[in-house]
Amino acid sequence: MKIGFVGLGIMGRPMALNLNNGGHEIFVPERASLTAETRAIAAVLADATAVAKAAEAIILMVPDTPDVDAVLFGPGGVAAGLNKGSIVIDMSSISPMDTKRFAEKINALGCDYVDAPVSGGEVGAKSAALTIMAGGTEAGFARALKLFELLGKNITHVGPVGAGQVCKVANQIIVALNIQAVAEALVFAARAGADPAKVRQAIMGGFASSRVLELHAERMINRTFNPGFRIRLHQKDLSLALSSARELGLALPNTAIAQQMMSSVAARGGAELDHSALVQAIEGLAGFAIPDRK
Amino acid sequence: MKIGFVGLGIMGRPMALNLNNGGHEIFVPERASLTAETRAIAAVLADATAVAKAAEAIILMVPDTPDVDAVLFGPGGVAAGLNKGSIVIDMSSISPMDTKRFAEKINALGCDYVDAPVSGGEVGAKSAALTIMAGGTEAGFARALKLFELLGKNITHVGPVGAGQVCKVANQIIVALNIQAVAEALVFAARAGADPAKVRQAIMGGFASSRVLELHAERMINRTFNPGFRIRLHQKDLSLALSSARELGLALPNTAIAQQMMSSVAARGGAELDHSALVQAIEGLAGFAIPDRK
Repeated sequence: MKIGFVGLGIMGRPMALNLNNGGHEIFVPERASLTAETRAIAAVLADATAVAKAAEAIILMVPDTPDVDAVLFGPGGVAAGLNKGSIVIDMSSISPMDTKRFAEKINALGCDYVDAPVSGGEVGAKSAALTIMAGGTEAGFARALKLFELLGKNITHVGPVGAGQVCKVANQIIVALNIQAVAEALVFAARAGADPAKVRQAIMGGFASSRVLELHAERMINRTFNPGFRIRLHQKDLSLALSSARELGLALPNTAIAQQMMSSVAARGGAELDHSALVQAIEGLAGFAIPDRK
Repeated sequence: MKIGFVGLGIMGRPMALNLNNGGHEIFVPERASLTAETRAIAAVLADATAVAKAAEAIILMVPDTPDVDAVLFGPGGVAAGLNKGSIVIDMSSISPMDTKRFAEKINALGCDYVDAPVSGGEVGAKSAALTIMAGGTEAGFARALKLFELLGKNITHVGPVGAGQVCKVANQIIVALNIQAVAEALVFAARAGADPAKVRQAIMGGFASSRVLELHAERMINRTFNPGFRIRLHQKDLSLALSSARELGLALPNTAIAQQMMSSVAARGGAELDHSALVQAIEGLAGFAIPDRK
């Protein structure tokens, strides 16, 4: 299939490569930042309009909601070049509410729209092991699935358009709040004179078990906060959660607090640290830190 | 060994039975509520003072901090009967701060004190599969361990006296906040038009994985809130967390919110529901509930 790919960053590059390895033709818009590796596997066209004209499926993998808006509807954008019957697949992590609006405009051009954010990071992108959460019609999802199978492993059609982004936001809410759960519990334990490593060991396997208790608690105990997944990116996801919640008429009190805790870590210079550094905000509230055992 | 056991409730009864099956002699204070089964396996003495005189190890399994205080130091209490060299093992879930004070007073009588709260509930108590989190000296823990092995499986010596209670509180903080994490995420997903069951399925296995996402999320989706572990009991544990935190000079913002959410569920008549009913407080904030699919 002829695939347009916009957003050849840390995630997009290995994804485009995996699609090319799967036998697909890749078209990308000219950017100064394109790597030699990408230029070797893709046809480079003038802009996203030209890419949309050349391709049947256009995949987006860009940082944020305004980037998707610009790539689709800005000057030289995808919408101006789309052939009727093409499919737009947005794999960025962006606003679920704006996704529904973008999809309406693309549908009005006679094209399918599928939102399909991922989790699994650079490692998952390179090894074609991403978790993919998709929203769209049955027909749209069926068309995209052949491509998803070259990119990921745990692929779920969550619901109508926007549901993929909703699912990603829900995932990020849970991860953030599970991190805060472990942070509050371990700071409490350390401040009360218990060894947080032993506490973690004692409760692992019970109802407190989580992937975060396995991985992030260990980072908090060992004081190793190199990413991983950056505070800055999780801040963006929680902001999406809160702005969507406002639009939906929902109050998410612990999500709001966790977002403020991430802001606190960023304010203290930690925006590029792993999100387990949220514990530093809890420690900051008390003027007490889990002792570094090194 | 001659074991005094005070607190023959839902948890205490099967625990005393397991100790008796392990070859130990059980002494209990007279209570109108003693069951025929307990009377059949234990020597019933006048009060806890007489029990402490007769036994080398005295185990407590009572509801709350004031109950432990009364059993130990009230009229007819354990302290008045303790032989020098005996050991008091408090397996109730109570205040870590008060535990340290109780232990000091018991140590002053020439006796050991070990705090060893459990998790695993009635099922774990009956099948001798409790998780036991112990605080005390090495010597005290070593004495108690022979008894713990008849009661539980995952047995950890977390640290000095009080550390068992600290660990239990840390566990209950994490469980409560993981429940709130899942509640906020699923209410968000449902309100945004996604199927919460599909969202759960899509994110299971990733960084959002937890025992709570397995078990409690399912209860929220299926609207089955029969206990399980009651809101009323988890409220008590979170109150312990917050009062201890105040004494330690800590702020635990998400724990405080979760405690308020449990209070909200109780205020709406749900004190005896399973703690996964915390989701009803999040739903109450929005005037929207996850649809019942039945």
